[in-house]
Amino acid sequence: MIFGAILAGGTGSRMANHGIPKQFIELCGKPIIIRTIEKMLSVESFDYLFIAIHPDYTDYLKDLLNNYGFENNSKIKIVSGGKERIDSIQNVINGISELSTSDDDVIIMHDAVRPFVSVEILENSIKTASEYGACVATVPAVDTMYVLDENGFISGFPDRKTLFNGQAPDSFKVGVLTNALNTLTEEERKTITGTVQICSAKGYKIKTIAGDYKNIKITTENDLSVAEGILKKEEENESLCIKG
Amino acid sequence: MIFGAILAGGTGSRMANHGIPKQFIELCGKPIIIRTIEKMLSVESFDYLFIAIHPDYTDYLKDLLNNYGFENNSKIKIVSGGKERIDSIQNVINGISELSTSDDDVIIMHDAVRPFVSVEILENSIKTASEYGACVATVPAVDTMYVLDENGFISGFPDRKTLFNGQAPDSFKVGVLTNALNTLTEEERKTITGTVQICSAKGYKIKTIAGDYKNIKITTENDLSVAEGILKKEEENESLCIKG
Repeated sequence: MIFGAILAGGTGSRMANHGIPKQFIELCGKPIIIRTIEKMLSVESFDYLFIAIHPDYTDYLKDLLNNYGFENNSKIKIVSGGKERIDSIQNVINGISELSTSDDDVIIMHDAVRPFVSVEILENSIKTASEYGACVATVPAVDTMYVLDENGFISGFPDRKTLFNGQAPDSFKVGVLTNALNTLTEEERKTITGTVQICSAKGYKIKTIAGDYKNIKITTENDLSVAEGILKKEEENESLCIKG
Repeated sequence: MIFGAILAGGTGSRMANHGIPKQFIELCGKPIIIRTIEKMLSVESFDYLFIAIHPDYTDYLKDLLNNYGFENNSKIKIVSGGKERIDSIQNVINGISELSTSDDDVIIMHDAVRPFVSVEILENSIKTASEYGACVATVPAVDTMYVLDENGFISGFPDRKTLFNGQAPDSFKVGVLTNALNTLTEEERKTITGTVQICSAKGYKIKTIAGDYKNIKITTENDLSVAEGILKKEEENESLCIKG
């Protein structure tokens, strides 16, 4: 089986003047999370799509799902988002464990605020997680990166050729992620937050797949401007395609 | 004295369907390089603004400067862009050496395709290069970064807390950059391309200043969408300011 998961447990927003968590902000008239849900559901091989949401916003999400025609979508399963990201992941895994029939089932975990993930990335994640047990979408670092000392002087020049930006989704065989989570110590649970780091710390090798520079995470007002630019360009291209 | 420099020597473009080097592409009706020139000239303390341009595009640039009212601007000095970035830098330094009166003069080197640099960044670059001899604008890494091995598996997790994205401008005391360039071996000249790396290799400490996530380098079609988004948001904010 193939499980999708959207982590939308956050309640904060660095975009204060919107008054709602960032995943609910409208991007050109449609909430970001709805765009992400639509993108994931466009991949038909997902058997279920889990959404981890803070209890305070469960009704809000349900209303949105109704408004956008997902009220009877039996693939969607809403679970409670925990205080920390890792708690949301744990709740998703708990929900999946009731449905999963094999440790080789895969879970594709995506961020609610990355609506521009492509179908290709999602399908490649499914394939690669099935083959290697764990994978994550990355893109080659474009900028020159510097390591800074505590006084703001450059202390190191990482080799850009081997340096990549991590994106989402993170994808795993259910058995891999479950085992990694189950063997975390309390200390590890506090200090390691990313699922990729968790599985790596437990000795699993993480394969990478090609992400996309458009697959941005929308967390600031600036990101929102960027997202509007990407969306307008996509819509222009689509209308060009239709015209052509 | 304070020298500005815009590196615009490139003739290629990853944005093939525009048919011109990327610095000349119009962003909302105005060429990117003109936007960058206008921003730099808005900092009055620059005594001169050098522009390094490939000889094939000198006339093109001059026409643009005329069209945008810079034909009689005595601050602007056009020099030949070399085959490699470092050759352009060398040509700028050669031009500056005829005008500079002190090794403590500073040069603020910016990319033609970063039109969103702020006046604050430029002024802070001048101040910091004067004080420390060398500085560069950086922003804290937002993404989780991974080191990949040759097979595409994750082999390392750099500490994000100390990791920063390099931007431009790179700024130096004229004496520092001249000395660093003069002592480069032929081998170093081939392998080290960034001025920050050059000066660091020659033992100079590089201070960092706060860049801005909006200060993007426009090199792909995707960047162009992003740039349009940023620009539209800026214009909205400006019109809001005027209305308010």
